[in-house]
Amino acid sequence: MIYRKLHKDQHCEARTGQIHLPHGNVDTPVFMPVGTNASVKAVRLEDLFSMGVQLILGNTYHLYLRPGMDVIQKFGGLHGFNNWNGNILTDSGGYQVFSLAPFRKVTNEGVEFRSHIDGSKHFLTPEKVVGIQEILNSDIQMVLDVCTEPGISHKSAREALEITTSWALRAKNSWETTTETYQGKLFGIVQGNFYEDLRARSAEELSALDLPGYAIGGLSVGEPFDQFQHYLAFTAPLLPGGKPRYLMGVGTPEYILEAIEHGIDMFDCVFPTRVARNGTLFTDHGRLVLKNQRYEYDTRPVSEHSPTAAYSRSYLRHLFKAGEMLGPMLASLHNLWFLKKLVEDSRRAIHENRFLEFKRSFLDLYSMGIPD
Amino acid sequence: MIYRKLHKDQHCEARTGQIHLPHGNVDTPVFMPVGTNASVKAVRLEDLFSMGVQLILGNTYHLYLRPGMDVIQKFGGLHGFNNWNGNILTDSGGYQVFSLAPFRKVTNEGVEFRSHIDGSKHFLTPEKVVGIQEILNSDIQMVLDVCTEPGISHKSAREALEITTSWALRAKNSWETTTETYQGKLFGIVQGNFYEDLRARSAEELSALDLPGYAIGGLSVGEPFDQFQHYLAFTAPLLPGGKPRYLMGVGTPEYILEAIEHGIDMFDCVFPTRVARNGTLFTDHGRLVLKNQRYEYDTRPVSEHSPTAAYSRSYLRHLFKAGEMLGPMLASLHNLWFLKKLVEDSRRAIHENRFLEFKRSFLDLYSMGIPD
Repeated sequence: MIYRKLHKDQHCEARTGQIHLPHGNVDTPVFMPVGTNASVKAVRLEDLFSMGVQLILGNTYHLYLRPGMDVIQKFGGLHGFNNWNGNILTDSGGYQVFSLAPFRKVTNEGVEFRSHIDGSKHFLTPEKVVGIQEILNSDIQMVLDVCTEPGISHKSAREALEITTSWALRAKNSWETTTETYQGKLFGIVQGNFYEDLRARSAEELSALDLPGYAIGGLSVGEPFDQFQHYLAFTAPLLPGGKPRYLMGVGTPEYILEAIEHGIDMFDCVFPTRVARNGTLFTDHGRLVLKNQRYEYDTRPVSEHSPTAAYSRSYLRHLFKAGEMLGPMLASLHNLWFLKKLVEDSRRAIHENRFLEFKRSFLDLYSMGIPD
Repeated sequence: MIYRKLHKDQHCEARTGQIHLPHGNVDTPVFMPVGTNASVKAVRLEDLFSMGVQLILGNTYHLYLRPGMDVIQKFGGLHGFNNWNGNILTDSGGYQVFSLAPFRKVTNEGVEFRSHIDGSKHFLTPEKVVGIQEILNSDIQMVLDVCTEPGISHKSAREALEITTSWALRAKNSWETTTETYQGKLFGIVQGNFYEDLRARSAEELSALDLPGYAIGGLSVGEPFDQFQHYLAFTAPLLPGGKPRYLMGVGTPEYILEAIEHGIDMFDCVFPTRVARNGTLFTDHGRLVLKNQRYEYDTRPVSEHSPTAAYSRSYLRHLFKAGEMLGPMLASLHNLWFLKKLVEDSRRAIHENRFLEFKRSFLDLYSMGIPD
């Protein structure tokens, strides 16, 4: 077992714990910065390490296409390539094939697709994806899954789910034959679209495979917040309680807190760094949009405890107005720091059985808007 | 006197020294990183400070247009605005009006121009430019000058020079009436295009003003290297020896070493950071172009002692191929480090009276190309 629960809040499902991984322990709940192309955009990994980040993401689809596995293999894996000595979770590429590739065709055997970079044709199978992630030396690797969009028929969602389950089994068999030196853990991904029976079936079939951890995929894909809440509340309890639970694609304070309340341990999203590059920063009072005129003369920092506290809102605004790269650099660091602080504060609140109260007061303040 | 000479090489004009400025001493020869918009592009100023950088540039033209003086004034100057506690030299804007503004008209009184940002009309005078740089709290400020392009007639060059001299006098008078709390030093700029008699006249007229330091402008503007050499060798000795000598717009190892040999103390250029953003890095063996295929599998760092030594050429190349901002970030830091090391090595060589030998062996290696 790689997961050890430390404390469950008495008033909800929120819990603290620790995941034991080849590159060190990870305290949960945890937000994982996304480093799609072996780089967390506009951020130096040393800065994340200094900030106490224990786990970042990489992406199989992107890294397989560029720089390619032969390059990564020269470095003995992704850690050697991007000089990150913490843990790395790699997504399987299932979602990227679904969302980025200009062409894809799913069969029982695997998925054929064209690269969004150069149009070249590729074929991935669950076994091949395990092998790629072994080369990446991923501390956590995800099974290849079939992602579907909201609004599809029950029949289509069921078919996708059935393939996903069969691929998970094949991935497990393949993962069990990886070399002894490879110590990465395989996580399953619960799909089922927005159908309760399919979510339940997926969770049940995957749980039976007894994988080291489980993720919920296909949520937070554009559906209304109450639908997200509903399916989160429905699906989370179906995942094994003694293993890490990962909700994929969640990266705003509202969604993260909702997920923590329902016993989710891990989250990731490009959102914090993506909006940072446009000058939108998380604060206790909500999102601060730096380009707003009101900050032109504002000598205060965005947040007093942020790693960007030495810089004023006025200066940060100027950097974005002038198109200076330092703007995205500082804003990205800030947003990752903010989410790190959010999960740390959550952990503290859980230990004191006051997570619901913490969540409510955080969201009350967060919805108030930036004071003058 | 703000300049103290430490040692002159016995075999050439190269010299080491120290400039005493409001934000600390500056060891010379010095390369000054350019922070046009109150930011050295893609670099955090803390990293430059840690690297031992004592003096960076800002630009009056850019800062006057954006964020504007009313913003900077709120911070008591540029140091408060961009959180840089070392020294700042600001260029007067003369060169930018000449090279960036879509319209300009020089009269004896000053220069009218349109902003390259929004087309708005502005009028700068030597007095106004001193005042702007006082608000910026520049440790070194430059006089407003009239820049000219290579190839103009002697008459046009003379007329520009005459205005430049008259503006320098007006700037001096204005600078002498700045507030007591403002401790910045005013430097003159020798112009004269590519006419020896005009260079001599400019140097003589400006020297007579007894300003704290002097720059050579209008060199390294696209002319052939031997013409640059000739006018450098001709002009440098005409500047007062007891004051800092600054050659504007020089930022490659070849030009820097040539300048040092002729007794120049200060240089600046956007070149090192500009080419870094395209993936071109200075090394002892010449410029390394990261996008080159040959580095695809190269596990070695660009340079073992660089602040980017933890990263391989292969990884840096990948960052540029993938369009990751971390590429420009690391490359910019590297190039600034490289030039800092170059001037430090030069200083050491000067102290030991072997600068010419150092220059020759550096350039020999630098012209050899990157070994396999």
